[in-house]
Amino acid sequence: MNNEQQEIVVTEKELVINMLVSAWEAQNKRFAAFLDKVTDAELAGETSPGRNTGNYLLGHLTAVNDGMLPLLDLGAKLYPELEEPFLASPDKSGKIMPSTAELREKWHNVTALLHEHFKKMSADEWFGRHTSVSAEDFAKEPHRNKLNILISRTTHQGYHFGQMAYLVKKS
Amino acid sequence: MNNEQQEIVVTEKELVINMLVSAWEAQNKRFAAFLDKVTDAELAGETSPGRNTGNYLLGHLTAVNDGMLPLLDLGAKLYPELEEPFLASPDKSGKIMPSTAELREKWHNVTALLHEHFKKMSADEWFGRHTSVSAEDFAKEPHRNKLNILISRTTHQGYHFGQMAYLVKKS
Repeated sequence: MNNEQQEIVVTEKELVINMLVSAWEAQNKRFAAFLDKVTDAELAGETSPGRNTGNYLLGHLTAVNDGMLPLLDLGAKLYPELEEPFLASPDKSGKIMPSTAELREKWHNVTALLHEHFKKMSADEWFGRHTSVSAEDFAKEPHRNKLNILISRTTHQGYHFGQMAYLVKKS
Repeated sequence: MNNEQQEIVVTEKELVINMLVSAWEAQNKRFAAFLDKVTDAELAGETSPGRNTGNYLLGHLTAVNDGMLPLLDLGAKLYPELEEPFLASPDKSGKIMPSTAELREKWHNVTALLHEHFKKMSADEWFGRHTSVSAEDFAKEPHRNKLNILISRTTHQGYHFGQMAYLVKKS
């Protein structure tokens, strides 16, 4: 392998990280535009009759994003109090939920903080293990890296975004 | 860079392709299980009042997956006739749509064919340009590769899968 080939290989490794971070960021941008458009009254409603409310899914996505901070070894959760109502409990559990205004703010804060961290993460960090897998298991299962968390969270957010899109009246 | 480091870099390139193909396959597996469960009557219904029907979204996803064949340079579409009713037209357009049984079969056939191709694709192929970008543009925008199509299609399928999940009655 000569120097030129080496450079191409390294570039592709960084390239794929950029692609995955871009896919995540593009989705967040679309979701932020959606949040600008959807009203508080719409978020309080169900995404489909008998299904999760917009508020629940917004809290759920915020809690999941918040969980990426410790999982990617980027620090503690900003809002651990979201775990009980939005991860451990289904919608309409009676658990205390923040106001819609607070939920909007928390989603923006968590997403912005992840964005700042992602700008600084090296390719090697992304390919390193996430914190819920042990060093021993990671040696055998190297796909359980931080990049894989980003992939699964992008898909998960897309799944619920498709549902939340139903909150906004068709024009 | 010594031989050991070279090997790690190459492994990571293949690793990330495996991760992305696995994410795609895992989603298809869940979607196939969903198709086993959802009835024809449920698929004929709307995912939410006034929204796309299950049949339309199934045809739409099948047409999008089918489009991956030429886009990834894997051959011609299996079902080019799906383009008009499911890509060029919205739901309830009055365009002729296949029966639900046919739609189920076509989704399975397209997905199985992609699966066979993906098993044989090399890492270099995945990092090569897709067919809707010119060689000139690709030289400047190397992220417009086949892997990026896979990333965007996984997110897109997840978005509509979240909506189609509403077709099945809550148990």
